[in-house]
Amino acid sequence: MRDLPDLNIALAGYQPGYALPREMYTSQAVYDLDIEKVWNANWLWVGHVSQIPNPGDYFLFDYGTESVIICRDRQGEVRAHMNVCRHRGSRVCVEQSGNARSFVCPYHAWTFELSGELRGGRAMGADFDPAKWGLLPAQVRVFQGMILICASKDAPELDSGLEVLAPLTAPFGFEQMKVAHTASYPVPANWKLAVENYMECYHCAPSHQEYARSHSLKNPTDVVKLLPAMQDRARAAGLPIDEVSLNMEAGHPAGADIYYRRYPLFEGYKTGSKSGEPVAPLLGALTGFDGGATDVQLGMLNYFLVYSDHLVGYRFVPRGLQETDIQVVWMVHEDAEEGRDYDPQDVAWLWHVTSQDDERIIRHNQEGVNSHFFQPGPLAEMEFSIESFYQFYLHMIGAQPG
Amino acid sequence: MRDLPDLNIALAGYQPGYALPREMYTSQAVYDLDIEKVWNANWLWVGHVSQIPNPGDYFLFDYGTESVIICRDRQGEVRAHMNVCRHRGSRVCVEQSGNARSFVCPYHAWTFELSGELRGGRAMGADFDPAKWGLLPAQVRVFQGMILICASKDAPELDSGLEVLAPLTAPFGFEQMKVAHTASYPVPANWKLAVENYMECYHCAPSHQEYARSHSLKNPTDVVKLLPAMQDRARAAGLPIDEVSLNMEAGHPAGADIYYRRYPLFEGYKTGSKSGEPVAPLLGALTGFDGGATDVQLGMLNYFLVYSDHLVGYRFVPRGLQETDIQVVWMVHEDAEEGRDYDPQDVAWLWHVTSQDDERIIRHNQEGVNSHFFQPGPLAEMEFSIESFYQFYLHMIGAQPG
Amino acid sequence: MRDLPDLNIALAGYQPGYALPREMYTSQAVYDLDIEKVWNANWLWVGHVSQIPNPGDYFLFDYGTESVIICRDRQGEVRAHMNVCRHRGSRVCVEQSGNARSFVCPYHAWTFELSGELRGGRAMGADFDPAKWGLLPAQVRVFQGMILICASKDAPELDSGLEVLAPLTAPFGFEQMKVAHTASYPVPANWKLAVENYMECYHCAPSHQEYARSHSLKNPTDVVKLLPAMQDRARAAGLPIDEVSLNMEAGHPAGADIYYRRYPLFEGYKTGSKSGEPVAPLLGALTGFDGGATDVQLGMLNYFLVYSDHLVGYRFVPRGLQETDIQVVWMVHEDAEEGRDYDPQDVAWLWHVTSQDDERIIRHNQEGVNSHFFQPGPLAEMEFSIESFYQFYLHMIGAQPG
Repeated sequence: MRDLPDLNIALAGYQPGYALPREMYTSQAVYDLDIEKVWNANWLWVGHVSQIPNPGDYFLFDYGTESVIICRDRQGEVRAHMNVCRHRGSRVCVEQSGNARSFVCPYHAWTFELSGELRGGRAMGADFDPAKWGLLPAQVRVFQGMILICASKDAPELDSGLEVLAPLTAPFGFEQMKVAHTASYPVPANWKLAVENYMECYHCAPSHQEYARSHSLKNPTDVVKLLPAMQDRARAAGLPIDEVSLNMEAGHPAGADIYYRRYPLFEGYKTGSKSGEPVAPLLGALTGFDGGATDVQLGMLNYFLVYSDHLVGYRFVPRGLQETDIQVVWMVHEDAEEGRDYDPQDVAWLWHVTSQDDERIIRHNQEGVNSHFFQPGPLAEMEFSIESFYQFYLHMIGAQPG
Repeated sequence: MRDLPDLNIALAGYQPGYALPREMYTSQAVYDLDIEKVWNANWLWVGHVSQIPNPGDYFLFDYGTESVIICRDRQGEVRAHMNVCRHRGSRVCVEQSGNARSFVCPYHAWTFELSGELRGGRAMGADFDPAKWGLLPAQVRVFQGMILICASKDAPELDSGLEVLAPLTAPFGFEQMKVAHTASYPVPANWKLAVENYMECYHCAPSHQEYARSHSLKNPTDVVKLLPAMQDRARAAGLPIDEVSLNMEAGHPAGADIYYRRYPLFEGYKTGSKSGEPVAPLLGALTGFDGGATDVQLGMLNYFLVYSDHLVGYRFVPRGLQETDIQVVWMVHEDAEEGRDYDPQDVAWLWHVTSQDDERIIRHNQEGVNSHFFQPGPLAEMEFSIESFYQFYLHMIGAQPG
Repeated sequence: MRDLPDLNIALAGYQPGYALPREMYTSQAVYDLDIEKVWNANWLWVGHVSQIPNPGDYFLFDYGTESVIICRDRQGEVRAHMNVCRHRGSRVCVEQSGNARSFVCPYHAWTFELSGELRGGRAMGADFDPAKWGLLPAQVRVFQGMILICASKDAPELDSGLEVLAPLTAPFGFEQMKVAHTASYPVPANWKLAVENYMECYHCAPSHQEYARSHSLKNPTDVVKLLPAMQDRARAAGLPIDEVSLNMEAGHPAGADIYYRRYPLFEGYKTGSKSGEPVAPLLGALTGFDGGATDVQLGMLNYFLVYSDHLVGYRFVPRGLQETDIQVVWMVHEDAEEGRDYDPQDVAWLWHVTSQDDERIIRHNQEGVNSHFFQPGPLAEMEFSIESFYQFYLHMIGAQPG
């Protein structure tokens, strides 16, 4: 990156415990670096195995300037390929999802197997070796049905963390889920402001009336007060109550963060719904509602909130320097039948209204950060998770702050 | 600014008496510098005290990447604050105008007094000193009811010039005015082309049929011919006829320019209206129509044209490199009653049609300046005011032309 | 260009026989250079003499940041002027076409003769010499009625190539043509991707069903098979069958490329129409349909496809870094009468549907090239013309690849 000297000048003003400097959110060169060093080099949650049950099933996952084909190959394995023809660079796959026997580039008909290998290479002459020109592969991990990909060969070492996490999430039965609803909330702001917004609950009380009514996280003393009783109920319902936080501070590799923590809802709330009543059948092996919610993080960019009857997945997908899609995916038990067992609108209600709030908040945040008079202010203790994000982020872009 | 070397290379081709080089109007880096060094460091006319009569009344003034809250505090003083939360940078005030007891940031509820002081600082810990985290203040001057602000602490010294101007404008009773109409004309051009357009009347004859019919300024010899009789009428109506021009050339501080000059309308025109007849009651202490119009300038970026019965204020507000809002405010005597004493459409007619012309002219100017073949040409004598603007501008951005 | 060092770094990865590196299609600095060094310094086909039959007739040709006035002067000569006022840079002519006695700048009424000379220079003082401030001229060549212009004084030497071409195109009677239809297909891609698309027929078989059905060029062996019979018919119809390819590789000056080659349509196709039947009267001196199509290139940026009864002209006009207009002009014999002798929709059908395909293809190409994972791949033998384009292009921008 040609602007790296400027980046370090900008970051010279960075102080731990404070927000990042303005240029981190306003510079196109920094944004390009974000795609290259952060998004292309980290694990991204792209979907669930239930979306591609059969060989040839595929869907695209797009972010920044990138597009990735996620498919199931003939052997039944989940594969991911960069969606860029090795000939002159066309997108190979242009439909968002479908079933294909092979991927045929719409430009010159170079044809790629589901495994990414180039079949032939029409009229390329005798010296041409198709084996060298397959689609570039992305790394794939399937964790209890959740598909994660990483475009870089040097993906952060995620497996050891997933091993720690596996027994904790097992009772939820991630693998036996299906998508109940999806939504995308475009926000005219840098993706990092959207991530920061998700990572702290200091703003929950003033900004999220519906969330604050039901979730204790907006007030640390409430969490402490309500936790023991919830933990008893959790154990009874079949849920481990351990807390896991593997991050750089804990000596974990950058970007391979794993987080698991269950916290209490307020009395009267069995799940994150409008009424507090269940909105879908119990997940996995659970035997009852404990009135809790679990924050799960898989890597640094993939966030989940797991209630007893549904899961909400969050991604903050960059589209441009100040264009981000807040993508939300609501999942329920695979056996639940829409109409009979759940109404997608009820499942989605809380995080739909909350995301609408967040769109407004994040937009106003970017507007202010754009000012030449923005000076990064001190973080509150309730914003400590943002600090972890900064550590990860600065490490990834190769910055040497201070 | 990282592109400053390039700026001086670009300006090496600048010659006094000629237009500025192309890059001054086409470079994003120059535009960013304009906001920082010109707009953030100069006096901006933002409105009139009649817009915020009561404590807690406020309105926003936005330009470039900036937003300023202008309010009346509990003591009745006019205050201005940069609209950027000192915590993580959100816009604090998001309504364009209203009445507030305090300004509560919509993100984390940091609460600021009308005076800008931070009240508390929710959950920030024992060591947190709220006194350090009030809203950044902007400078404020109220000149005969007109509110000027400057975001920089190092505002150009304006007061001595205003003292010279005060007796000249006094008869118009600026303080006893109110807004009759406002309009904004977005033009896809750099703000400097809009200012240049306003500063010269070389284009008035070919471009402004309605203005040229009534105003002598488009022809210097007409001004000379009609001036003595108008000055007699002005004295009789209670108006001083002095001319004031305080600018850099006259040894005045850069950016604190003060200009006052009354010039004649053509016969049959009592004011700048379609018919030439009055469109509102006489301003201030005036006792009759003298058939004149006064050009007033307060600082380098704020322009007024004062007829005997109404005032027209002009601003050329940058929105982007080639996006500018021509903002026009029409004001009349505070006692004038809409419908009975004036029709806003009649008051606004002349400068509405003229601004529509200007939008077209300035747009075509930018289109041509964007060409690689644009070479700055020689200024006509009737464009001498542009030269003063360039001197101020180049001084402000720290350029050393030639 | 301030980014030239970066340009050479980017090009260090370029290998002959492969596509250009990503930055050539994604960098604003490269795009600005393209306008300055390629578009402003080469011959551009802008139209036909039939569009400006009378003195004072004019039309504008716009590309990138530039606008050119093409007019017929009082002496009946075709002239071209850069559409930028020499005073403060306004566009002088703002209507796309018309008839004018002189060009009066809409800003300050500087008035230019059809020859470009400044008439007077209103109120510019005694020392002002109008002779110095005429519109900047563009070079003009009229080749058999086709108007080519070049904004630079140092235009590539085109005349010797046109002399070689003249007898070959003479039978088509380019001069005795008129415009039957025009269309513009905006594509969100860099102009070079649009040119590359036009220059190779490796994509014709997979991408252009309608074209591939009628034109043999998509399969070199078909061309060879059908050529002798077509050449017999061509000779009989009055068409030379020579092939001409003057380009850098052949020792010709860069940018002055001349290309002429007639190739066969498939059986049953007399011309490039839906049914294969004629869609207009025979061109020029032709005495029959030979079932062929001629590719003609005038300079590096102007492409023509000539059937026996109509001509299709192609331009790929840059509008922005990733905004290009595919401009297509269909021409027929000047004596042909619309409605009686031809239906513009029938004339335009093939290259309308083909251009729609190309818009889609080129768009997907740009999307993939934008990926950080795009690596230029090997060109097929059927893409050899792209290689000539690269040679010309790299020479023009002053790059030293490798």
